[in-house]
Amino acid sequence: MKLATLKDGTRDGKLVVVSKDLTRYCAADNIAPTLQAALDNWDEIAPKLEALYTDVEHQAVPTERFHEREAHSPLPRAYQWADGSAYINHVELVRKARGAEVPESFYHDPLMYQGGSDNFLAPRDDIPLKDTKWGCDMEGEIAVVTDDVPMGVTSEQAADHIKLVMLVNDVSLRGLIPGELAKGFGFFQSKPASAFSPVAVTPDELGDAWKGSVIHLPLMVDYNGKAFGRANAGVDATFSLADLVAHAAKTRDLGAGTIIGSGTVSNQGPEGDPGKPVAEGGLGYSCIAEIRMIETIADGEAKTRFMAPGDTVRVEMKDAEGHSIFGAIEQKVVEA
Amino acid sequence: MKLATLKDGTRDGKLVVVSKDLTRYCAADNIAPTLQAALDNWDEIAPKLEALYTDVEHQAVPTERFHEREAHSPLPRAYQWADGSAYINHVELVRKARGAEVPESFYHDPLMYQGGSDNFLAPRDDIPLKDTKWGCDMEGEIAVVTDDVPMGVTSEQAADHIKLVMLVNDVSLRGLIPGELAKGFGFFQSKPASAFSPVAVTPDELGDAWKGSVIHLPLMVDYNGKAFGRANAGVDATFSLADLVAHAAKTRDLGAGTIIGSGTVSNQGPEGDPGKPVAEGGLGYSCIAEIRMIETIADGEAKTRFMAPGDTVRVEMKDAEGHSIFGAIEQKVVEA
Repeated sequence: MKLATLKDGTRDGKLVVVSKDLTRYCAADNIAPTLQAALDNWDEIAPKLEALYTDVEHQAVPTERFHEREAHSPLPRAYQWADGSAYINHVELVRKARGAEVPESFYHDPLMYQGGSDNFLAPRDDIPLKDTKWGCDMEGEIAVVTDDVPMGVTSEQAADHIKLVMLVNDVSLRGLIPGELAKGFGFFQSKPASAFSPVAVTPDELGDAWKGSVIHLPLMVDYNGKAFGRANAGVDATFSLADLVAHAAKTRDLGAGTIIGSGTVSNQGPEGDPGKPVAEGGLGYSCIAEIRMIETIADGEAKTRFMAPGDTVRVEMKDAEGHSIFGAIEQKVVEA
Repeated sequence: MKLATLKDGTRDGKLVVVSKDLTRYCAADNIAPTLQAALDNWDEIAPKLEALYTDVEHQAVPTERFHEREAHSPLPRAYQWADGSAYINHVELVRKARGAEVPESFYHDPLMYQGGSDNFLAPRDDIPLKDTKWGCDMEGEIAVVTDDVPMGVTSEQAADHIKLVMLVNDVSLRGLIPGELAKGFGFFQSKPASAFSPVAVTPDELGDAWKGSVIHLPLMVDYNGKAFGRANAGVDATFSLADLVAHAAKTRDLGAGTIIGSGTVSNQGPEGDPGKPVAEGGLGYSCIAEIRMIETIADGEAKTRFMAPGDTVRVEMKDAEGHSIFGAIEQKVVEA
């Protein structure tokens, strides 16, 4: 099924069930007022939402026109957002650009940071930026939402705790990252509010494209109206989303509604080619930092600048038939 | 006023107003069902809770016996928990023990990490530990809860956004920290669920002890039934809690119910003495890592081991008259 949260003036919005083609919705707040409430009691609530989804698909209930611009992030705020690095190619490029090796451990022990989850942006909200020197960047990623996950689960067990899948634009302030990482405590100011896709879907909606807790489809990232990234999320994933959930649960239980991200989707390209613009037949990039690294490796310096007020980003994923699965994240950077 | 959240079988518990002496409570769920709900609409809700508090104090409403053991953490789960390092002495000791300098920037740019907030322990919950090699430690700290904080506030403005104050035991797995910090993305597995004091209080409850957004009182940490730490939270605070809130809000808004921690309370002691056991007239330590650092500096190696199943920790703070302000965090480590 497909779920969304409509803006209704409250902090947590209103839960709705959305038709597979994203054109219609039916309010589900009589089943659970919010998506968090549904996740808090998923085993009991999900079958009721599924039944409503069937009715929506069969036009057996009245529905209204679904507008992606009216949607919040599916969880407008969450109790946990942790972002991993499944696509080590991204990390390899970062390191290569500064002449550093990737530690061997990165291939079996995922990188993961704890992100802020108190105030997500809606998928069509502007990205407020106070200072262009902060180096604003997008990161196109996949994210999953779990129910309650007990401490110490295996990857296989973790897979069963993945209840919903969505896309995320993990906004990053590249200019603030080196200073913060040098302090040793990880990202904080360098990771302002992220935005998620208008719709979250259950893994079964992905059909054959959901295999081994990875989506085997290209992530479409457009920048200022042009194709920028088409990396396939099913290629070069060193870790699955289930691996990342298990990593997060190693020393503690995870509460229902925990969001775990894949990190920037990034492919090696043919014959280890680290990347080529989409316009030149390459797979492109899911973030600006990556094209800057390619430029640095090739020419000794980065030419593409980071985002400034007026720049736009679009993140979407389409199924084999070319239909949008999650709706599109569409954001513009504005002066804060 | 003093507020608590009683365990009632739900994830977010039931909001109650507690008498100043912590002996009685009156349910406040007719005013706001949960503490988060109160914080979401604080300007409207707080005066009603204050009025009820006055009635509780005057015995003008029926009350019931308050038992600290029946309390959740005031926010059993939160949308944000970020922990700073106000007491640089703690950082200085860590560095000194390994022969490293403290960067000058640490004295004006606070350390802060984003913590997990999906599943806090209750103040009397056991601390589940899977492996003693993980090096389980307590960290006695002060924490504040904010309402909505706009991006870019100054420290002075941030002070007005501090709505509640409480204590926290920030559980840390010291054995996992070096590996995680070496990866560069900060703490994750090394910071399992924390526990907060049974009661959260408005700053005015602290009277003269709340000055410059710092509490000028000793933090009492007992370990296995013996006095372990008596560091004064008003001494050697390089940053106030308002400074830390402003730091957190530099690049993003903070949502209502954001919890910001002070980091381990730590004093330099007389004449820069880095610490001495309470039994020997010193101020002791608010975490085991610190006594281990003192031992390492003095003797080249740490003798005190980290916590193992059966070990207990107690964190409390008393006012000038010797009355407990927040109730006590009392936890025992158990095998997970």
